[in-house]
Amino acid sequence: MSACVFPGSFDPVTRGHVNLIERAAGMFDSVTVTVMVNIAKSGVIPYEERVKLLRKACSHLPNVQVELWQGLLADYMRGHPGSVVVRSVRNTAEFEQEMTAASVNGRLCPGLETVLIPAAAQWADVSSSAVREIAAFGGDISGLVPENICRDILERLKAADARKK
Amino acid sequence: MSACVFPGSFDPVTRGHVNLIERAAGMFDSVTVTVMVNIAKSGVIPYEERVKLLRKACSHLPNVQVELWQGLLADYMRGHPGSVVVRSVRNTAEFEQEMTAASVNGRLCPGLETVLIPAAAQWADVSSSAVREIAAFGGDISGLVPENICRDILERLKAADARKK
Amino acid sequence: MSACVFPGSFDPVTRGHVNLIERAAGMFDSVTVTVMVNIAKSGVIPYEERVKLLRKACSHLPNVQVELWQGLLADYMRGHPGSVVVRSVRNTAEFEQEMTAASVNGRLCPGLETVLIPAAAQWADVSSSAVREIAAFGGDISGLVPENICRDILERLKAADARKK
Amino acid sequence: MSACVFPGSFDPVTRGHVNLIERAAGMFDSVTVTVMVNIAKSGVIPYEERVKLLRKACSHLPNVQVELWQGLLADYMRGHPGSVVVRSVRNTAEFEQEMTAASVNGRLCPGLETVLIPAAAQWADVSSSAVREIAAFGGDISGLVPENICRDILERLKAADARKK
Amino acid sequence: MSACVFPGSFDPVTRGHVNLIERAAGMFDSVTVTVMVNIAKSGVIPYEERVKLLRKACSHLPNVQVELWQGLLADYMRGHPGSVVVRSVRNTAEFEQEMTAASVNGRLCPGLETVLIPAAAQWADVSSSAVREIAAFGGDISGLVPENICRDILERLKAADARKK
Amino acid sequence: MSACVFPGSFDPVTRGHVNLIERAAGMFDSVTVTVMVNIAKSGVIPYEERVKLLRKACSHLPNVQVELWQGLLADYMRGHPGSVVVRSVRNTAEFEQEMTAASVNGRLCPGLETVLIPAAAQWADVSSSAVREIAAFGGDISGLVPENICRDILERLKAADARKK
Repeated sequence: MSACVFPGSFDPVTRGHVNLIERAAGMFDSVTVTVMVNIAKSGVIPYEERVKLLRKACSHLPNVQVELWQGLLADYMRGHPGSVVVRSVRNTAEFEQEMTAASVNGRLCPGLETVLIPAAAQWADVSSSAVREIAAFGGDISGLVPENICRDILERLKAADARKK
Repeated sequence: MSACVFPGSFDPVTRGHVNLIERAAGMFDSVTVTVMVNIAKSGVIPYEERVKLLRKACSHLPNVQVELWQGLLADYMRGHPGSVVVRSVRNTAEFEQEMTAASVNGRLCPGLETVLIPAAAQWADVSSSAVREIAAFGGDISGLVPENICRDILERLKAADARKK
Repeated sequence: MSACVFPGSFDPVTRGHVNLIERAAGMFDSVTVTVMVNIAKSGVIPYEERVKLLRKACSHLPNVQVELWQGLLADYMRGHPGSVVVRSVRNTAEFEQEMTAASVNGRLCPGLETVLIPAAAQWADVSSSAVREIAAFGGDISGLVPENICRDILERLKAADARKK
Repeated sequence: MSACVFPGSFDPVTRGHVNLIERAAGMFDSVTVTVMVNIAKSGVIPYEERVKLLRKACSHLPNVQVELWQGLLADYMRGHPGSVVVRSVRNTAEFEQEMTAASVNGRLCPGLETVLIPAAAQWADVSSSAVREIAAFGGDISGLVPENICRDILERLKAADARKK
Repeated sequence: MSACVFPGSFDPVTRGHVNLIERAAGMFDSVTVTVMVNIAKSGVIPYEERVKLLRKACSHLPNVQVELWQGLLADYMRGHPGSVVVRSVRNTAEFEQEMTAASVNGRLCPGLETVLIPAAAQWADVSSSAVREIAAFGGDISGLVPENICRDILERLKAADARKK
Repeated sequence: MSACVFPGSFDPVTRGHVNLIERAAGMFDSVTVTVMVNIAKSGVIPYEERVKLLRKACSHLPNVQVELWQGLLADYMRGHPGSVVVRSVRNTAEFEQEMTAASVNGRLCPGLETVLIPAAAQWADVSSSAVREIAAFGGDISGLVPENICRDILERLKAADARKK
């Protein structure tokens, strides 16, 4: 179990995500963080930008790489044999979603394993959607996102907001 | 308790739905599967197509009929006196939604009863939205939907996708 | 689906139980309420007394009978072919216990079905253990148990309390 | 703890909301009900109308005032020092959302406290979205919304429906 | 809402309890912490000792008093008219227990209100039973219980352990 | 992440446990299954017997060893630096217990990580307590426990039952 994939939308990456990635980087030889394209809802920050933000947020972690994937997670994992899927869980609502996803993914890709990592209590209330909402109202997101990309995130969210208008 | 109504959106019908209908057909003299029109979100496959798919999926079950209803479930049930509402539940999130729905429906139609049938563990991860997402990415849905309508579902989803573009 | 079995410990029967039994009696041709002997914890009121209290509480329901069973529910249900198990659910904690029990029972007795009936909001806070605790402190249980057996229950609980000392 | 703020979308206000406000008005010297503008989804009834409906629904409660706020709750609460946030909870799904919201708000506004008030069992199934759906299908909402504004709500929902077409 | 009662077993009081009491003491004019005698299970530390430990742990809070009560909470609250019951909640399991308890208590004592205060994320994993288990195996409980009574708690737990043997 | 510890009471080991151990053995270089002594409740099968049953049940897995530990898990893990704790989760009730345990263990042993592995749907209803209850009533446990130790388990449970009498 020396390689894992941590898939998500990361719109944008938060301190909670980075905490999880740091912990996974301590547990696994190699961690691949994968931005998943969601064709049902496109989100706010462009996918390529999310990848760049993640790379900057994880630049202190030598065994972490960031990728982008448009397709099913099960298909992606076929290209990463031996890797397990890692997901963070904060509460029972997320837990039940992850149980269902893990089961469907195991059905589509036999042998694929998912392990759930408990979110740190300190970051369990931080989510990408909270960051977006707080930023939209001009609130202070500096405590919720990695310090070295806080300004970048604010710019990306403002640009997205401008595009919408 | 010889008649029941199993309402849902069935966009599209899955093997999980058919498993539930088969079990209900063994418990009740008569099962009516009712496609409910949702005016808040229209869904993907046209309602009349969903009815046709369900009829084909249930053609081996002589005591099952399929109907379409645009309106409140409580109003529909007034036209089916003596029938109970049957709903499948897979996890606590669905359970709480069903508890609320059962209570509201009993308020609007006094005496109306709802019974919850535990989803079979084997199919608890299968949902219409998972089928749609997997199909959208070209994944294999043959294990998730009834065999005799798998091709029909793929065509309907492709047609819906084409309409959207 | 004209016959059901409603198993439980009924130590003692509450108004919540009777509400459920009345509703089941409206849904099924025949309802068997079965006091299950629990060999792990014996409870407070003797089993035969629980049966008597239930019979008195259900005397207005002609299609309800009360039985006592020492053994597995799956074995009991083999003696009631065609019957489904009915269980009341009040919240997610009970729901998950019932999902597990339904699955185990279906494993031990293939074909056995369990249906869950949502507890009425009005009685969802009433439980046998609450009745016992309130009675132990001399509180008023008259709103929590059937009127025609309230005095009997208080006597049984006092007798049990005396035996313990 | 003599002042509280009860924030929400109130689209429209229901009997469940009024029950909660009445109970809060008995517990606190002053209750401010605050309609929160949601920039992600605008809802159905215009915000100013929601405020008017709430004022009419609470006209029998002298220590209740109604306000409108476009911005973060944390920023709003800075203008109400000493007030606690009050939220109603009906089930575990709502509970987990409130736990997260309370934590984020305490992060943005140190010292801000949130207290959760259990919804009355009698009204726990009533929600604004249920009211809207029932009204959309011509169902009877008179049992779900305050009597003195039932007609107003129906008119507002019809007007909103007309605007959409 | 200037007075509240915080009932519990406090066997022993933890840092999580004290965090809750401190926050309640900031919200209410007066906080009464009440050790409830549980006749079903007696616990480990004698009730009078629990009261003493609580008093020492709350000695920095002038508006907090500690009491002992053998009886129903509903009866106790009748002696504290105008007070609300305060309970801490950490997760959905506790939440559902509190919802049921609040409803039963409101049934036994009409007008009695219960408010739930979200446990601080930092202390949400700390419980009296964890403290007892860790101490039993000689682990370090100093981070889990108030500093000024840590030694007292260890002595009381050892004494209880000795009595058991 | 090449070594993990899977702690539990294993009273007795079930097919669900073995499924989890097999999957962990595929993910990690080394898996240590550890029977934890519970001083609060002693259980049914003697601890040394549980270890023997586990060893027999895992004899086909070369990278799995079985140990016994009387003490805190946090202390045990200090003797296994670099190992993560692995726990199986079946539903939200277990999930919340594991979240709390993971947090307390990380508090007592900084850096200690816990990963949760979703129970296979096929075995999610199987538990040691179900096995004990079914065996106690003479039911068939052969589908719930590993084939090569089914007879041993029945003997151990009968012996324990005899000791109790």
